[in-house]
Amino acid sequence: MILILTPNIEPESHVYQLLTTHLSRLPDIELRIHREQGLEQMLTEIHLIGNTSAIPTEDMKDLPGVERVVRVSEEYRILGRHRDDHRSSHFNYQGLQFGQDTLHIFAGLCAVDTAEYVELMMRALRDNGQVCTRMGAYKPRTSPYSFQGHGKDCLPYVFELAGKYGIKVIAMEVTHESHIDEIHRALRLTGEPTGVMLQIGTRNTQNFELLKFVGRQKDFPVLLKRGFGITLSESLNAAEYLASEGNSKVVFGLRGVKTKLGDPHRNSLDFAHVSVVKRLTRMPVCVDPSHSVGSRSRGPEGILDIMHATAQGGIAGANMVLVDFHPDPNRALVDGPQALLLEELPHFLEDVEIARKAFEKRTAALARYASELQTVAA
Amino acid sequence: MILILTPNIEPESHVYQLLTTHLSRLPDIELRIHREQGLEQMLTEIHLIGNTSAIPTEDMKDLPGVERVVRVSEEYRILGRHRDDHRSSHFNYQGLQFGQDTLHIFAGLCAVDTAEYVELMMRALRDNGQVCTRMGAYKPRTSPYSFQGHGKDCLPYVFELAGKYGIKVIAMEVTHESHIDEIHRALRLTGEPTGVMLQIGTRNTQNFELLKFVGRQKDFPVLLKRGFGITLSESLNAAEYLASEGNSKVVFGLRGVKTKLGDPHRNSLDFAHVSVVKRLTRMPVCVDPSHSVGSRSRGPEGILDIMHATAQGGIAGANMVLVDFHPDPNRALVDGPQALLLEELPHFLEDVEIARKAFEKRTAALARYASELQTVAA
Amino acid sequence: MILILTPNIEPESHVYQLLTTHLSRLPDIELRIHREQGLEQMLTEIHLIGNTSAIPTEDMKDLPGVERVVRVSEEYRILGRHRDDHRSSHFNYQGLQFGQDTLHIFAGLCAVDTAEYVELMMRALRDNGQVCTRMGAYKPRTSPYSFQGHGKDCLPYVFELAGKYGIKVIAMEVTHESHIDEIHRALRLTGEPTGVMLQIGTRNTQNFELLKFVGRQKDFPVLLKRGFGITLSESLNAAEYLASEGNSKVVFGLRGVKTKLGDPHRNSLDFAHVSVVKRLTRMPVCVDPSHSVGSRSRGPEGILDIMHATAQGGIAGANMVLVDFHPDPNRALVDGPQALLLEELPHFLEDVEIARKAFEKRTAALARYASELQTVAA
Amino acid sequence: MILILTPNIEPESHVYQLLTTHLSRLPDIELRIHREQGLEQMLTEIHLIGNTSAIPTEDMKDLPGVERVVRVSEEYRILGRHRDDHRSSHFNYQGLQFGQDTLHIFAGLCAVDTAEYVELMMRALRDNGQVCTRMGAYKPRTSPYSFQGHGKDCLPYVFELAGKYGIKVIAMEVTHESHIDEIHRALRLTGEPTGVMLQIGTRNTQNFELLKFVGRQKDFPVLLKRGFGITLSESLNAAEYLASEGNSKVVFGLRGVKTKLGDPHRNSLDFAHVSVVKRLTRMPVCVDPSHSVGSRSRGPEGILDIMHATAQGGIAGANMVLVDFHPDPNRALVDGPQALLLEELPHFLEDVEIARKAFEKRTAALARYASELQTVAA
Repeated sequence: MILILTPNIEPESHVYQLLTTHLSRLPDIELRIHREQGLEQMLTEIHLIGNTSAIPTEDMKDLPGVERVVRVSEEYRILGRHRDDHRSSHFNYQGLQFGQDTLHIFAGLCAVDTAEYVELMMRALRDNGQVCTRMGAYKPRTSPYSFQGHGKDCLPYVFELAGKYGIKVIAMEVTHESHIDEIHRALRLTGEPTGVMLQIGTRNTQNFELLKFVGRQKDFPVLLKRGFGITLSESLNAAEYLASEGNSKVVFGLRGVKTKLGDPHRNSLDFAHVSVVKRLTRMPVCVDPSHSVGSRSRGPEGILDIMHATAQGGIAGANMVLVDFHPDPNRALVDGPQALLLEELPHFLEDVEIARKAFEKRTAALARYASELQTVAA
Repeated sequence: MILILTPNIEPESHVYQLLTTHLSRLPDIELRIHREQGLEQMLTEIHLIGNTSAIPTEDMKDLPGVERVVRVSEEYRILGRHRDDHRSSHFNYQGLQFGQDTLHIFAGLCAVDTAEYVELMMRALRDNGQVCTRMGAYKPRTSPYSFQGHGKDCLPYVFELAGKYGIKVIAMEVTHESHIDEIHRALRLTGEPTGVMLQIGTRNTQNFELLKFVGRQKDFPVLLKRGFGITLSESLNAAEYLASEGNSKVVFGLRGVKTKLGDPHRNSLDFAHVSVVKRLTRMPVCVDPSHSVGSRSRGPEGILDIMHATAQGGIAGANMVLVDFHPDPNRALVDGPQALLLEELPHFLEDVEIARKAFEKRTAALARYASELQTVAA
Repeated sequence: MILILTPNIEPESHVYQLLTTHLSRLPDIELRIHREQGLEQMLTEIHLIGNTSAIPTEDMKDLPGVERVVRVSEEYRILGRHRDDHRSSHFNYQGLQFGQDTLHIFAGLCAVDTAEYVELMMRALRDNGQVCTRMGAYKPRTSPYSFQGHGKDCLPYVFELAGKYGIKVIAMEVTHESHIDEIHRALRLTGEPTGVMLQIGTRNTQNFELLKFVGRQKDFPVLLKRGFGITLSESLNAAEYLASEGNSKVVFGLRGVKTKLGDPHRNSLDFAHVSVVKRLTRMPVCVDPSHSVGSRSRGPEGILDIMHATAQGGIAGANMVLVDFHPDPNRALVDGPQALLLEELPHFLEDVEIARKAFEKRTAALARYASELQTVAA
Repeated sequence: MILILTPNIEPESHVYQLLTTHLSRLPDIELRIHREQGLEQMLTEIHLIGNTSAIPTEDMKDLPGVERVVRVSEEYRILGRHRDDHRSSHFNYQGLQFGQDTLHIFAGLCAVDTAEYVELMMRALRDNGQVCTRMGAYKPRTSPYSFQGHGKDCLPYVFELAGKYGIKVIAMEVTHESHIDEIHRALRLTGEPTGVMLQIGTRNTQNFELLKFVGRQKDFPVLLKRGFGITLSESLNAAEYLASEGNSKVVFGLRGVKTKLGDPHRNSLDFAHVSVVKRLTRMPVCVDPSHSVGSRSRGPEGILDIMHATAQGGIAGANMVLVDFHPDPNRALVDGPQALLLEELPHFLEDVEIARKAFEKRTAALARYASELQTVAA
């Protein structure tokens, strides 16, 4: 059960003290306080953990300082969308708003290889009005003998170049706790020229210790990728590990699942789950067409499968796109064959825009038909 | 190797006789003649079967009556799209054209239950400008103790009502050779008021004997659904069974695949394969959102997952949509929970239209960018 | 609900007449009579179809001619193993008994290619004391351009050679109704020198029309292979199609399932389901190691993976083994790479024997421990 | 390329100095030294990393101190079994030998709950002659709100009780680097009464940072479980992460894979891969029947599916069995439904013994037939 308090309530205030004192006397119930600074106000939730079935909702609603009460189901306690749960799903980072009704594109390098390529990428992004990117410094690879990314060594120039070209947020995979420190240090060293969205990759979706560590920091939002061999529900539970430790600035990433049935694509696309994740949870949903498709194949009309996949995510309301570009795919150290070219960036962006506009038209059409049906019914 | 002859060449003509006489002398090569009456002309192809690697393409091109030569790869000999293969992929049926650049919607009853419901469905279709539908008479069911469809008994009233409401094509699953006869007979009995597209369902995708039988008739076009537990390539090979027997009026249907990873949807959506099938073969591609999704769940914005899935197919260039409607889903004998309501038909059609328009805009954008890149390159 | 009548009850007898007259008056209940000639007696079951929940078991037990009553669950009505259901699972064919406690080995040719190879195979079997084999005449192949089997043309010499070498039962796949006629005719023509177990392959597991046809004949027992992309429950329901039409001489075949996770084997082995199928149904269970493994790879100790797989089936109580041999695998037209050599037959048979003996020891050990535990409890 | 040196060669010896000086001059080749203290001798391998294709094997064989040269294939460089690679696969720990020809049973608690249950378990093991067990202290759970194990708090009493009852090795999952320190500390604190085999669970199979950390210590051997949604090859590569950091005392664990096709079992059994892992690598192979099957269902003959699965692993040559027992499964905090009872331990052990004996008989039979065939050939 979640008590949503009146906005901007102060922990030192009399009403807050009264409330928490009362709640702490509930037998066998543990309290967890979640405070979230939004753009305009401070939101406070008190989560009652334990068997709350015997506590009447009405009693809780009447307590001082309580604005609303949400009775949560068992699953996805914090990130989930519970019955009659109209809480916002937004969070802000670096002046950008992320939610289930926004769209951000993170085009960039799957793996950082050279400073020159990073700069070419950043410049192309700036020239096309982009303020987000992806840059892989720590690369988990199937074989221990493959290139594992430049790690912390590349961070300073990546961050400086981001600052130079006005990039506000870099999605960057981390595979170990120490990477967060290294990112922090490199950001400080370079004067905080940009921001980072920590990415947890598909191999670590159920690396619960890493999730708990990342969940305990609130500096960086997190992009959690779906585990490629587990059910959607298991991956959503993994997201809840982040939130249960305090960080609910979580974007959920779809990136295809592993089955023989997706061939010739690298993975089976799972973008049909865009609306499912948005229904079950309050997380914004990211799609990763590059790792789902894994090649530069095209339909007979000439459009890349990667762009078809992106459009399929977009028309269903995806909130973020993570996509691989490279100035010279033949020289890319990781996943070159699936990278788009810098000169394809304007086309890609327009293609995404068409799909997004279609989603908006669809939403408007729904509203129109819904009101017609109501008029008929009345 | 395929020799495409000059259009309208007559089998009795001198040039044709010369040509075939010559070809019949090629050692260890078997000839198969495919003649297809198009809207405006009769097209003839001669397929050379056997080891054609030693036959020079140029020599064949120079033969009288030969317009073009396509050297086919091993796979999907007839339906495939081979290198430099710009043959049309269209076929006509009942005055409608089916191809990789058209779009037809087949909304209707998963299973025919009563004449009353059939009429309600047909009327709604007519009122919304539709000329195609789906109507299930023969239903393969997992358990032998479930309702198996009304079979041939319902055909007369289904066809008569189709005629009454201007429906030109009914997609209808067949599971046994005798069903084609039954359909023929019922059509004759009722005065041929409509047409039928024979549907081979996912349980019979590799029922090669049925495919061969259906392939030997040319009266009805065929919608072959993908097998739900086999690779895409295996299903495309199954389509080739139809074509190798003579019927290449084949639409390929995507309907989701079976894995644990699609939950909570009934199947894992495979509409990312729309462009793949169009690239590998010359078949129009159908999507079946109803059997893929299997429920009336909605995204938080209120749009049904079935409509999201349809839009994902549409924006990638799908050529046909097969979708379940029912006047009273609670009383439907098969798959009621996934059926849309008749009053949702206008909304559904507009939603499909938005996705299709988006696909067209994407194709136009591609053309624009492609010509820009060429100008730059020049 | 199933009423098991006293053995050898005659349909013309008074008690039978009384019973069926009474039962036919039960409202909304349909009767289906199953009569099965066993080795020593004629067994009769009356199945009550419809809502039987209101019919007291005791009332039925008291009816004349009724020996036992089994209240069946919804699933696998005829072939299933219901609560307190101790009916036998045996059937006899060609003097051999098939049940959940027997073991038969069907080694032979995946596909018949020449009479010479058939004879070599048959002779090797006879020389090693075998009386069953497999011989593929009708081969369903992924591509229409692959060798499809010699079909009815090879049947006469296959049957004659079987007779010559004392082979009593040949497992033989059929893919079309007409094949059963062809087999009948060839058997008659050659003087019924052997018997046939009709095999339904994995591509036709849910070809319900074929199942119904095969189920309507009682001359031949049937080996139904599991569908390779469907759940076990769906395949068991398919077996029920055979039984519901009258033929319950059904062996259920495990042959691996399709997933990426079985590599480097051709399929994921599913022999863990031996005990599951035996628990859920009364069918004998066959394992097909050749199609599961699909290669002649060996463990480092030198034993073929195919033999390991067979042993894994055997030690869990499998009742039948279907395995590919070939006198000259390099010349085999189908699945040569997975075939064992004739000179490996004695080794293979001894290996199976070791696994079977281990199963028997395990069963004996269980009995010992069970009685000890009871002694302790007493 | 791997140079296997003469046993007991000293790093300070002249011949060793000569050798390494020479090798260090090879252009673009990096050296990695692996030293392994066996029961009787110290083995040294020098791995040449880089493009070794131009280095003649013969030249290397002739170098002083070199006994044998193995040219490794790309995959599984250290743990793999390369052509003509007859290196031993054994390692010793706590006086026990682990290899591809040994068998150890690790029966125990999936999760430690109380000291009382731990003692009951340990005593039963001692009474049945067992010296290994499994004890879960750190439990990764799908939901953050489930019981996560007692962690380090339970270690002291677990280790003390192990010592009291003569248990030499405890398999224990770790999910974070700090757990190894905690285990070290608790062992020291309690006087090193037992040993630990670190277990990496299926959710962390590709948690490469954890693998690298665990690989850098050589105190404890490691049991790496297969990832449940990745290919076998990907999991074997993960094992190579351990070895590439220095620890090649690795046992590979099969525990079922996730697909819809294993139902009603919790996972699809993958024990057909026992011989595959032994062929591709030199690791001993463990089977975990409890997590594969996930229930106490029985075949109709009365044997538990878990015991059938174990026997299937055993008859194919598995080297280790990890199995859940519990004194009172109804009170178990994790996976109670799949636990065997203490009174079933003797039966379980005898069942394993029967399967192992069968494997040995099969190996003996193979040798007999192989020598016969050679005699015939000679």
